[in-house]
Amino acid sequence: MASEQKQHPSPNHYDIVIVGAGPVGLMLSTCLARWGYKIKHIDNRPEPTATGRADGIQPRSLDLLRNMGLKSAIMAHKPARVYEVAFWDPPTGGKGIARTGTWASCPDFIDARYPFTTLLHQGLIERAFIADLEKNNTTVQRPWTITGFTSDEQADPEYPVSVELQHVDGTFKESVKAKYLFGGEGARSFVRDQLKIGITHKDPIAYVWGVMDGVVKTDFPDIKMKCTIHSEHGSIMVIPREDNMVRLYIQIASSTDPDFNPRKTATVEEVQASAKRILQPYSIEWERVEWYSVYPIGQGISDKYTLDHRVFLGGDACHTHSPKAGQGMNTAFLDALNLAWKIHAVEGGLAHKSILETYEPERKDVAETLLSFDNKYAKLFSQRPPSSNEVAAATAQKASSGAEENEFIKTFKESCSFTSGYGVAYKANQLNWSPEHPAQSHVIAKSDALVPGRLFRNADVTRVVDANVVHLEQEIPLNGAFRLFVFAGKPSVTGQALKDFAAGLAKKNSFYSAYQRADIDSVSHHERHNPHSKFFTICTIFAAKRNEIEISRDLPALLARYKDNVYADDRWSRNYPDAKAMAHAKMGLDEERGGVVVVRPDGYTGVVVALEEGSATVDALNAYFGAFASKKLGETQAQL
Amino acid sequence: MASEQKQHPSPNHYDIVIVGAGPVGLMLSTCLARWGYKIKHIDNRPEPTATGRADGIQPRSLDLLRNMGLKSAIMAHKPARVYEVAFWDPPTGGKGIARTGTWASCPDFIDARYPFTTLLHQGLIERAFIADLEKNNTTVQRPWTITGFTSDEQADPEYPVSVELQHVDGTFKESVKAKYLFGGEGARSFVRDQLKIGITHKDPIAYVWGVMDGVVKTDFPDIKMKCTIHSEHGSIMVIPREDNMVRLYIQIASSTDPDFNPRKTATVEEVQASAKRILQPYSIEWERVEWYSVYPIGQGISDKYTLDHRVFLGGDACHTHSPKAGQGMNTAFLDALNLAWKIHAVEGGLAHKSILETYEPERKDVAETLLSFDNKYAKLFSQRPPSSNEVAAATAQKASSGAEENEFIKTFKESCSFTSGYGVAYKANQLNWSPEHPAQSHVIAKSDALVPGRLFRNADVTRVVDANVVHLEQEIPLNGAFRLFVFAGKPSVTGQALKDFAAGLAKKNSFYSAYQRADIDSVSHHERHNPHSKFFTICTIFAAKRNEIEISRDLPALLARYKDNVYADDRWSRNYPDAKAMAHAKMGLDEERGGVVVVRPDGYTGVVVALEEGSATVDALNAYFGAFASKKLGETQAQL
Repeated sequence: MASEQKQHPSPNHYDIVIVGAGPVGLMLSTCLARWGYKIKHIDNRPEPTATGRADGIQPRSLDLLRNMGLKSAIMAHKPARVYEVAFWDPPTGGKGIARTGTWASCPDFIDARYPFTTLLHQGLIERAFIADLEKNNTTVQRPWTITGFTSDEQADPEYPVSVELQHVDGTFKESVKAKYLFGGEGARSFVRDQLKIGITHKDPIAYVWGVMDGVVKTDFPDIKMKCTIHSEHGSIMVIPREDNMVRLYIQIASSTDPDFNPRKTATVEEVQASAKRILQPYSIEWERVEWYSVYPIGQGISDKYTLDHRVFLGGDACHTHSPKAGQGMNTAFLDALNLAWKIHAVEGGLAHKSILETYEPERKDVAETLLSFDNKYAKLFSQRPPSSNEVAAATAQKASSGAEENEFIKTFKESCSFTSGYGVAYKANQLNWSPEHPAQSHVIAKSDALVPGRLFRNADVTRVVDANVVHLEQEIPLNGAFRLFVFAGKPSVTGQALKDFAAGLAKKNSFYSAYQRADIDSVSHHERHNPHSKFFTICTIFAAKRNEIEISRDLPALLARYKDNVYADDRWSRNYPDAKAMAHAKMGLDEERGGVVVVRPDGYTGVVVALEEGSATVDALNAYFGAFASKKLGETQAQL
Repeated sequence: MASEQKQHPSPNHYDIVIVGAGPVGLMLSTCLARWGYKIKHIDNRPEPTATGRADGIQPRSLDLLRNMGLKSAIMAHKPARVYEVAFWDPPTGGKGIARTGTWASCPDFIDARYPFTTLLHQGLIERAFIADLEKNNTTVQRPWTITGFTSDEQADPEYPVSVELQHVDGTFKESVKAKYLFGGEGARSFVRDQLKIGITHKDPIAYVWGVMDGVVKTDFPDIKMKCTIHSEHGSIMVIPREDNMVRLYIQIASSTDPDFNPRKTATVEEVQASAKRILQPYSIEWERVEWYSVYPIGQGISDKYTLDHRVFLGGDACHTHSPKAGQGMNTAFLDALNLAWKIHAVEGGLAHKSILETYEPERKDVAETLLSFDNKYAKLFSQRPPSSNEVAAATAQKASSGAEENEFIKTFKESCSFTSGYGVAYKANQLNWSPEHPAQSHVIAKSDALVPGRLFRNADVTRVVDANVVHLEQEIPLNGAFRLFVFAGKPSVTGQALKDFAAGLAKKNSFYSAYQRADIDSVSHHERHNPHSKFFTICTIFAAKRNEIEISRDLPALLARYKDNVYADDRWSRNYPDAKAMAHAKMGLDEERGGVVVVRPDGYTGVVVALEEGSATVDALNAYFGAFASKKLGETQAQL
């Protein structure tokens, strides 16, 4: 989406300086570049990641990448896909190892669109982002580093941040001014250190890990599955990778060991010998080692994610943990996404600066949950292996059964929802409606299916204009706009309510009209998502067959303008076999009367409002947006 | 797939000379280049198609492109997708036009994996092939043309074809020798003319068509659908395209007109004015015209597709017809595919030369069917419009109803299966088993679901090694090999039958062992599809849950070698809700005892054989392959 290019006082003035071009920095940069911001993005490495590092893309992250149009570039590399995890343990009374159970990586109850983890070398993922940045005239300046910065809003209210940059060899230097500075440099963040922000270790336990990517020859039958293997000779985690590769994680030392030394290391050969012992009676030989690394890791969270809402941190600079749950890159993506749209909302004029204050609590809470999970998981991983009987009992157990579960498997199962990314639940605040929110109205609905602060749900629908069967949750691209999903029930029932809704939106002080595009009269008729405002995109979904819907007849002009975003809720789902309108049912909305769902630009539900005749629906939305909007909204408030 | 590079006597000796780099030439070239053949490929245009020409990829062709790994490159261009066709006609007793019905472009009964037509500019499709060719060190030599050729097997049994080529400006010339020559130069084929092969016109009717690609502004609601519009002012077909474009087909003249002139033409402005009249009461304005062309077209079929099974024709050189059913490129692809694998089977040593004789009857029969359809369709298109009552009656009609159908809609519906590409049925011959086939055995099964000469069916299954849910019909790439799908039923039932099957394959004179790779001892353990032979790939599908299957325990070593091609038939389908093993049921096979399905390299079923204990199963396959194999197969035959 091309935004109007903002004017800056000089070539050295930027909207944001981003330090670090790993997943967190690239996600932030890519979003802001698409939305028209001027970015100075540096990284101290001469090239993107060549080998190793993170590789796991969780289901929710894949949704996000698709929403950005980057999924196909990533899938073109034919990544490995993990659908199931296998648990291997010593057999009861026997030697060696035996498979004691398997569990879906992303079980059906999560209802993920892509119920698998995608495994691909981080460098290939980085390059997909970098290619996209280049389309928006943004490049990563390498190998450059940050040597100092200050932030002083009093001295310069508009560009309060001054940043000193230099080439890593010291030959060139630059001084730039910016509205924001973002530190995404990883665990050893210079920005965080300069801000003297401490790390709180959730648990004093620290670990030394070995990780090896390579191509092997083995008769171990689950080499293309994710496996946790416990044996009398130690423990390993197996992760399949693209190009016949496999990643092995081996814990080399834990601070719970009697002779713990955080500098303990192991050679490739030692780790391979250890893997051979652990995998007995199966054989394994390496044909090639692509990457090998040993690193100590602790579980820590940065005490603050921001200094003054001008200088921010995200990704590994804020949270470090063991790599085995495949969460690092995913958490980094979502840190950046959370911050990106909020900066856009403030700088684009929609929101009051206070929404930036929601970044830290929303994302720090996720990091706390991650570390609690990781902590429990990592401890279990290095504890005595569960017996095969325990595991068999747990995996054979059905939902209805009350049999006790092995602790390791139980943790794993409980955590599936969280690790898939679908379990993230932001707490109530000005963006995530709750009974304490300033917006109070009888039309604000409580749906068990759509909870503010949790992701909007996926559903298949049929697009009216071209009869294409589409994924509703993907129909609005990541354009920085709030998404208004108008579930319009039956046209014969909601006709007047839709007219009143459109009339309410069209009123001068509505949230919708208050943020009209300045160039609204020259917007192309091909503009699909943002014809009226950069900050709102509307979809309308009727509980009707496609051929019964006539857009020009059934929708008022304001909504009909989004003609490419009108859908028939006419698809069938095995999970809602009797629903007449599956998507309505899935969202917990009345199949005849519908309802309006406000989804934040990052895909999380903001508020759900009934679609009623009269002004109540838009009044409630004005009150919701009024909680963080930069302008006074709605006639009621304006008259106060 | 890398094949052993064949030795040629000189740099001027090729396996094949291909003239024309449109869809037919590129498909042939791409297949043969992948399978290791040396190709001289020329085209008389300096560049791939820049604008216009064919644009419709039918469902079966999309399966094929996916099977070649080319689908994602094509879908990356965000083509339009046609799921439904709308019929517009004059309203009863009214003026202008009204929608009188819609019909699924590829209705559910066809059971297509991708139930839509994909619309994309031919040049973008050509470039996907050209990029693939370049990976196999094959380039299209441009702008070069053919000036003469001879074919004389007596003079040179190995390279009987001599071809004279020259740059279109006459500056450079080349003389080359080849095993084969292929003319894919379109309707005005030099090769066909030189061979003095006539064209039989199915019907004396000829047409002049106008076609215009452009970007429009209109309030016509179905501009993103495929539409056939009849009005008192004439008829138009609307085809949506990528990048907000739309293609309009307008019939300018027909030899049934009283004043027919095959040179009749019309300007862009005339056609636009005509479209404006036809679309009333809707408005339409052109923002841009991308491409416009007027061309006369007749319905003709080349009398022969080959001279001597050394010089072949395919694509538009063999069949011309109206463009509106979107069949041209698809028929061209399938002509080339049909020929490609047969040349490979002969030149690779598997098959007797006589299988090349099946190319013309198989493909000419398809062309005859296409022309009959097109003939009927085109006539109806230019006849008086059906009344809206007729159309409404036809579209409202359910399968159970006996109400009479409008002829136009009826033709359209009857033809859906054919136009999707799924309806193609090759007649019985040495490749497509029938009771007249030399292979006679009580184990040769007759399945209504899998008919020899028709496509193998699609089904979801779960791959055992990595628990990935996959499309079974796509699991073997287009590698030139016959596909043996061993539906293995229940492991407890078929254990001995599988052992006997593997033992039969391992026998020296079996079809499987007779064509072992010469380099079998040095094949990498990563080789997934062709570990033993270039001409056979095996998949095994158990009617069991994934976690009940242990490959090393449940399969004899020969079949277990294909460990990445072992599947659990454990997925659910709405169409087979009560099946315990949906894929078995869908193929018409016993869910406990299974059966073996031989699929030709181009995806069409060859023969279906029961999986029995003893030697009968392999004996029957030896007899099937013996009908066209280059060697004597099976002990029985060897002893005769």
